[in-house]
Amino acid sequence: MSDNTSNNPDQNTNSQWGGRFSEATDAFVQRFTASVMFDQRFAKQDIQGSIAHATMLASAGVLSEDEKNLIITTLNDIAQDIAAGKFEWSIALEDVHMNIESELTRRIGITGKKLHTGRSRNDQVATDIRLYLRDEIDVIAHELTRLQQGIVGLAEREADTIMPGFTHLQTAQPVTFGHHLMAWYEMLSRDFGRLMGCRKRMNYSPLGAAALAGTTYPINRELTAELLGFSAPTRNSLDSVSDRDFAIEFCGFAAILLTHMSRMSEELILWTSAQFDFIDLPDRFCTGSSIMPQKKNPDVPELVRGKTGRVNGHLVSLLTLMKSQPLAYNKDNQEDKEPLFDTVDTVRDCLRAFADMIPAITPKKDSMRNAAMRGFATATDLADYLVRKGIAFRDAHEIVGKSVAFGIEQGRDLSEMTLAELQQFSAEITQDVFDVLTLEGSVAARDHIGGTAPNQVRLATVNAHKELAAR
Amino acid sequence: MSDNTSNNPDQNTNSQWGGRFSEATDAFVQRFTASVMFDQRFAKQDIQGSIAHATMLASAGVLSEDEKNLIITTLNDIAQDIAAGKFEWSIALEDVHMNIESELTRRIGITGKKLHTGRSRNDQVATDIRLYLRDEIDVIAHELTRLQQGIVGLAEREADTIMPGFTHLQTAQPVTFGHHLMAWYEMLSRDFGRLMGCRKRMNYSPLGAAALAGTTYPINRELTAELLGFSAPTRNSLDSVSDRDFAIEFCGFAAILLTHMSRMSEELILWTSAQFDFIDLPDRFCTGSSIMPQKKNPDVPELVRGKTGRVNGHLVSLLTLMKSQPLAYNKDNQEDKEPLFDTVDTVRDCLRAFADMIPAITPKKDSMRNAAMRGFATATDLADYLVRKGIAFRDAHEIVGKSVAFGIEQGRDLSEMTLAELQQFSAEITQDVFDVLTLEGSVAARDHIGGTAPNQVRLATVNAHKELAAR
Amino acid sequence: MSDNTSNNPDQNTNSQWGGRFSEATDAFVQRFTASVMFDQRFAKQDIQGSIAHATMLASAGVLSEDEKNLIITTLNDIAQDIAAGKFEWSIALEDVHMNIESELTRRIGITGKKLHTGRSRNDQVATDIRLYLRDEIDVIAHELTRLQQGIVGLAEREADTIMPGFTHLQTAQPVTFGHHLMAWYEMLSRDFGRLMGCRKRMNYSPLGAAALAGTTYPINRELTAELLGFSAPTRNSLDSVSDRDFAIEFCGFAAILLTHMSRMSEELILWTSAQFDFIDLPDRFCTGSSIMPQKKNPDVPELVRGKTGRVNGHLVSLLTLMKSQPLAYNKDNQEDKEPLFDTVDTVRDCLRAFADMIPAITPKKDSMRNAAMRGFATATDLADYLVRKGIAFRDAHEIVGKSVAFGIEQGRDLSEMTLAELQQFSAEITQDVFDVLTLEGSVAARDHIGGTAPNQVRLATVNAHKELAAR
Amino acid sequence: MSDNTSNNPDQNTNSQWGGRFSEATDAFVQRFTASVMFDQRFAKQDIQGSIAHATMLASAGVLSEDEKNLIITTLNDIAQDIAAGKFEWSIALEDVHMNIESELTRRIGITGKKLHTGRSRNDQVATDIRLYLRDEIDVIAHELTRLQQGIVGLAEREADTIMPGFTHLQTAQPVTFGHHLMAWYEMLSRDFGRLMGCRKRMNYSPLGAAALAGTTYPINRELTAELLGFSAPTRNSLDSVSDRDFAIEFCGFAAILLTHMSRMSEELILWTSAQFDFIDLPDRFCTGSSIMPQKKNPDVPELVRGKTGRVNGHLVSLLTLMKSQPLAYNKDNQEDKEPLFDTVDTVRDCLRAFADMIPAITPKKDSMRNAAMRGFATATDLADYLVRKGIAFRDAHEIVGKSVAFGIEQGRDLSEMTLAELQQFSAEITQDVFDVLTLEGSVAARDHIGGTAPNQVRLATVNAHKELAAR
Repeated sequence: MSDNTSNNPDQNTNSQWGGRFSEATDAFVQRFTASVMFDQRFAKQDIQGSIAHATMLASAGVLSEDEKNLIITTLNDIAQDIAAGKFEWSIALEDVHMNIESELTRRIGITGKKLHTGRSRNDQVATDIRLYLRDEIDVIAHELTRLQQGIVGLAEREADTIMPGFTHLQTAQPVTFGHHLMAWYEMLSRDFGRLMGCRKRMNYSPLGAAALAGTTYPINRELTAELLGFSAPTRNSLDSVSDRDFAIEFCGFAAILLTHMSRMSEELILWTSAQFDFIDLPDRFCTGSSIMPQKKNPDVPELVRGKTGRVNGHLVSLLTLMKSQPLAYNKDNQEDKEPLFDTVDTVRDCLRAFADMIPAITPKKDSMRNAAMRGFATATDLADYLVRKGIAFRDAHEIVGKSVAFGIEQGRDLSEMTLAELQQFSAEITQDVFDVLTLEGSVAARDHIGGTAPNQVRLATVNAHKELAAR
Repeated sequence: MSDNTSNNPDQNTNSQWGGRFSEATDAFVQRFTASVMFDQRFAKQDIQGSIAHATMLASAGVLSEDEKNLIITTLNDIAQDIAAGKFEWSIALEDVHMNIESELTRRIGITGKKLHTGRSRNDQVATDIRLYLRDEIDVIAHELTRLQQGIVGLAEREADTIMPGFTHLQTAQPVTFGHHLMAWYEMLSRDFGRLMGCRKRMNYSPLGAAALAGTTYPINRELTAELLGFSAPTRNSLDSVSDRDFAIEFCGFAAILLTHMSRMSEELILWTSAQFDFIDLPDRFCTGSSIMPQKKNPDVPELVRGKTGRVNGHLVSLLTLMKSQPLAYNKDNQEDKEPLFDTVDTVRDCLRAFADMIPAITPKKDSMRNAAMRGFATATDLADYLVRKGIAFRDAHEIVGKSVAFGIEQGRDLSEMTLAELQQFSAEITQDVFDVLTLEGSVAARDHIGGTAPNQVRLATVNAHKELAAR
Repeated sequence: MSDNTSNNPDQNTNSQWGGRFSEATDAFVQRFTASVMFDQRFAKQDIQGSIAHATMLASAGVLSEDEKNLIITTLNDIAQDIAAGKFEWSIALEDVHMNIESELTRRIGITGKKLHTGRSRNDQVATDIRLYLRDEIDVIAHELTRLQQGIVGLAEREADTIMPGFTHLQTAQPVTFGHHLMAWYEMLSRDFGRLMGCRKRMNYSPLGAAALAGTTYPINRELTAELLGFSAPTRNSLDSVSDRDFAIEFCGFAAILLTHMSRMSEELILWTSAQFDFIDLPDRFCTGSSIMPQKKNPDVPELVRGKTGRVNGHLVSLLTLMKSQPLAYNKDNQEDKEPLFDTVDTVRDCLRAFADMIPAITPKKDSMRNAAMRGFATATDLADYLVRKGIAFRDAHEIVGKSVAFGIEQGRDLSEMTLAELQQFSAEITQDVFDVLTLEGSVAARDHIGGTAPNQVRLATVNAHKELAAR
Repeated sequence: MSDNTSNNPDQNTNSQWGGRFSEATDAFVQRFTASVMFDQRFAKQDIQGSIAHATMLASAGVLSEDEKNLIITTLNDIAQDIAAGKFEWSIALEDVHMNIESELTRRIGITGKKLHTGRSRNDQVATDIRLYLRDEIDVIAHELTRLQQGIVGLAEREADTIMPGFTHLQTAQPVTFGHHLMAWYEMLSRDFGRLMGCRKRMNYSPLGAAALAGTTYPINRELTAELLGFSAPTRNSLDSVSDRDFAIEFCGFAAILLTHMSRMSEELILWTSAQFDFIDLPDRFCTGSSIMPQKKNPDVPELVRGKTGRVNGHLVSLLTLMKSQPLAYNKDNQEDKEPLFDTVDTVRDCLRAFADMIPAITPKKDSMRNAAMRGFATATDLADYLVRKGIAFRDAHEIVGKSVAFGIEQGRDLSEMTLAELQQFSAEITQDVFDVLTLEGSVAARDHIGGTAPNQVRLATVNAHKELAAR
């Protein structure tokens, strides 16, 4: 709860709806049910929505021009006070809407009371939260693009750098570091697509749905939608105040994004371990230990990996929240905000941390190369070689399997065996086999769209730059 | 585990990869790690993918035309045997891919062994599962549309039927039943959009990614992509075999859809209770009690509500599964199938049940109308009336609040009070107030886009019909 | 982030571990990785742990008596400053531990630097969080007991009040309101058992595990365990710093508790609807509407129902967090705190709200009774009557089913039919049937342990009082 | 769906409750709502419960001795037929209960119809599922104990084997492999405690709760509880048929267990990688690749790690399922079974796989030792050494930090520096420093309860053997 949220006992509580009530709200209940501690976060959007609503009411003749102007001027003043931290939030006034409207009325009297004509807190909050989320999506899209740019830049530089590719965390085949990085790029491109899908689906204006059924005033929903930058008004008032799909869909996007980032993190953590020793992270992204003086810990990727839990949790929270709620608005819906806010913050911070850090990674090329030399990484190349000599793939596989078993026993990789040794397993093997057993030969040979060959990686980075520029 | 899956101990186990192994797989481990019990479900798509792969290999000169034709003919024979339930699945052969390939080789010898050239089970399974899911998405899109058609049809018929609209499950304002149904339509329209987004993002061909790095054979990924109806090949081989986004995104779609259906279910269950008594469900969608002879239970919506849990669970399952997996393929990924399959089945069945049931709902119009008459549903109309008489909204709200308190005390609704009684609370109230206090007046007055007025509802159904027809 | 958390750029950052570092931490990274914004919450427990540690170090001869006394006195002073809001938290010092230790050293110089001897932040935070959670569990146990007392009190008063019992939300059989309430009591009793199990399993002292392997100092782990009220020291140092079971288990307890409270909430919301109208909630636990003057909304149960999502989400968050973390401590673990804290707060607040509200429920007995009269609630009693006349249960069930079909057609309940009408369906029915068709007869007849008969309910409340008193 | 589940259209559907129905159930709905495909799994327990119920009915005089005997004999015959796969399950009969009761009646006529006297499917299924779960818990407890025994045995053998201990996956301090293994033991011990808590809390008999309110027959609930091995009857009939806590609590236990096993798996996977190379897994627990002939993949731990998702998902599924269900039984509850069954199977299989595999692990001691030699693992020992020389811990930490920075620059570990080099950083360092910089000295020095010293590890294994023996 913010420090400048006061719970003023003298205030005439429930003044906005208390007509039929015979008893004041219990003080603890007031705090328990209030949302102003967290929904003050979209005060800016609340005022933005109110200004659009006032403008529309004036165009519809419900407010005079003077009333409209007075309301807008005063709301702008209030917005400034809020931005400057000079606004006193009151728990007795429940939420951001009541706090601002109440202050408006305090400043301009009866005219302020007219602002709520033809709307309800139900459509108001639905409008505010969409405006807020749209703003945040735009920031997030920017950070996501920045991260992808950093990845593509690094991939370009490392298009020829050879490292072992893994499956089952066992050495599988040599790949280039640039190719590996471009896999990350692909994951994030799908995330971008999901984010844009979410933005598009949520960008409709619920304003005018009022409490649940629409309003009897001659409102113009197209006008407010346009003023607020929405594609169009929503099409059903009951749905407009009940719908929290946008929050769930956003958290769904975030959960997949963080899952991707947890995979990147896992790799960064492995790669900075003494055992892998593939990369170096700059000291400024690491921290030490209070007890072990030698430690340099990859805190940033560890923390990002951990934050996957947070985002998955918020997604579950929202799905549980909405499960089997009858239409239309229920108080439960107030619980949509904190998970959404924390997801927004988490996504933004994680992207920022990675966008700053990734371009500063230093690959340890010798260490990567040495690792690729071990583990029989070119075994598949030998099998493919045998197939080209006319042996069926399954038989070639068997031959190489036996060569590997021999190599394990002898402690030598395939390229370290003599021709005679290799010929024990197949008479088809000749001197030219050693060309296919080099790392460079192996990666260069995978030269098709999506393959690990350096020129394919460079082509992919060129295309990626174009794609990012076109956003 | 299917009955016709045998675990043949005599079979030369691990024949596809056992070259380097000195010990047979433990029998329990073999069962524990096998997937053929569940992945046989996409045998059809596995064969479809193999046929495309063989066609491409022939066009690339890796297979001769005769070899290609023999492979395709034999695969089609195997497909028929599988469809006819005449195929013997073997756990020793681990998965659907090995089972089919092994049978192919049994039938045509060494030519069968050539089929796996230039691919791996990693890209093979990624291809199969996308083909499978794409087929299922198309079925689900059809059922979803059918459900929406049923809703629109009912909404059209009930565009004038008045019922209470609820917020907080308290009577709020009168709405029309058609309007309420069209809120359901809107939810499902967003679901349809998400489903199409998922389909579009997944419809790329991973075939050719091979184990993780691409292949040294002169493959043509564009050709296989085209043969299989994919938009294009995927762009990075490591990503292609690691990516399970499509499964998560589909389950995310499903979780929101089922959440929507749980809300519809909750309402159907409430409406069939003796207390609400708003609708009748046909006997054929209900069951009885083994002990209480009078019971008629709304089993279908109850079960759909319950199945929300199942789908949410599968989404969490997949997110947990993928969390912090290093690239590329890991055995963990095998666990993606069962949650996805069960989600597909659940979605399809729930949609089918609702698409059949919704059009058969019988509204109990008198009961709905009577409920709308109670609970001061037109209180907002009275407030709006006072605003039109020149009173500020907040003051009008206060006046009506006091009228309601009086009504509760007296046990009478607003429309049941005398003019004199109403005038106690405001002198501005005159005889014309009784027009706004009728249910018909109330709903008709909310006559703007998205409002509950019958003509708005009818307009919405016309637009919905167009939208559905355009899919 | 608390207002009095400053990020002082002049401060010698990383002073606790910076020896091997060549570059200061990035400012954003510092904020991103810091935990002091939230872990200051257990400052009290951190100091409590440090005092026990200092006491032990002195008894082991590592600190002199004077040093120990100076440390303890100064820590107590710091604790007072923190409690009084006079402590300046610094993000540059990362966490609560470093902030307090740094302040200690600022005040007493080199002696302060000796406090960290033989421990690490890894065992320190593990100790703090267990002390914190133990304190909170004790508060929660108290609130849970208070809620159960309120339920038992109400159940006692309403042991004879008849309401319809529901299955499938369809009227099933008459029950007493007291009996229904005692079902809630049972759920909460299991929750209490789980809470105690969690407390018992977590109440071991990790202090002395140091970073991960124990320490070379002659520490006495039994002594610190005893001083801090733990049952014993933990038994493995690696496990001690890696384990977050207690947080997950607590959230597991909380998820089931909130699921129970969501069920109670759902019922309270149904019962306050105009359609059920079974109870009245006092105005002080409800709020109104900004637009609909007649509304009185059951906000408290709605919000509690919604908060189920929050708690389920936190459980998933922690499970995801810990999934596949290698031993021992990883930075990810820092993410355990916020979900745990928010779960603690949510549980405590929800219990408090319900403990205050439940005893203030006013049942509307006539309305409940009337509802029980409808819906053929005594149909099972008629079937049982027929069985006592010698008819097999399944045949009796069939007879009553037909009677009910007749009743629906005629719009009359079983007790409203004439004897002749009833005899249409079975000749065994005689005048005495009307005794079993009364509500009082029905409930009184279920007179066995756990049955709904008023005297069974009264007996259950007596036993519950004893159980609660014995805690 | 099992093959021997037929959907017989000729059967008089709904014969158990169809009296009031005018229309047969829709065929798809019948399949959609049926549970016999999965609940036939507890046929054995259903019959066990029916036998206890019949025995009690006879003792209460509701059945004659002859009737009871006929019922029991016939039920035992049916049980044999089911066990032999000779029972034809019918979807038209919905569930396991109806299938068995119907067959009983087919065989013995009207006497069979009397069995359902005084019970309902609601208490019947609640009884069956508890009996089933109790049986499975006992099997699981056995497998968990067997796994722990395997761990303790290995830990005993490896009490002196030195490996690097990690935090943040960075080398932290040397530990013994036995000590690391005993950390796993501790995790599993807490799991065992939770499993026993779950068993204890669920072991109450719901039989006699009937549909929801108890029954009018003179039943003896204590007798059936005793016959079925329950601690006592449940205490409230409404709760008895609504409660699914046991399933959630079991899945909560399973989620933490699998989270632990995912951590063990992650380590096994890391340790078998070429980069760590700490252990060897026997071939029989691994599989190969269809394309890469050299691969030996740690499939079992990978799959176990993946199955964490499955179990977390089922937990979420059940929590979502129960959220905000009003009392008492709802059809939703049918959805509790499949998640529970799959969780039981998963837990049992994963435990079995690990219990078989862990004792067969071969540590590669040289590789572990070499890894511990790198990474400045004894830096903390040097700091502790300096503290013993009179330097405050924080200053000692700083000195060692600088020594490490020097070592990184020079490419040498602390033990590889000369005395003169070390003295650059502190004049307090003398020749005896080299004793504390050995790995053996480091681990032996952590000689307190829970520390990594070999004799502490041996002591821990002795205590563990006692603990396991006492179960």
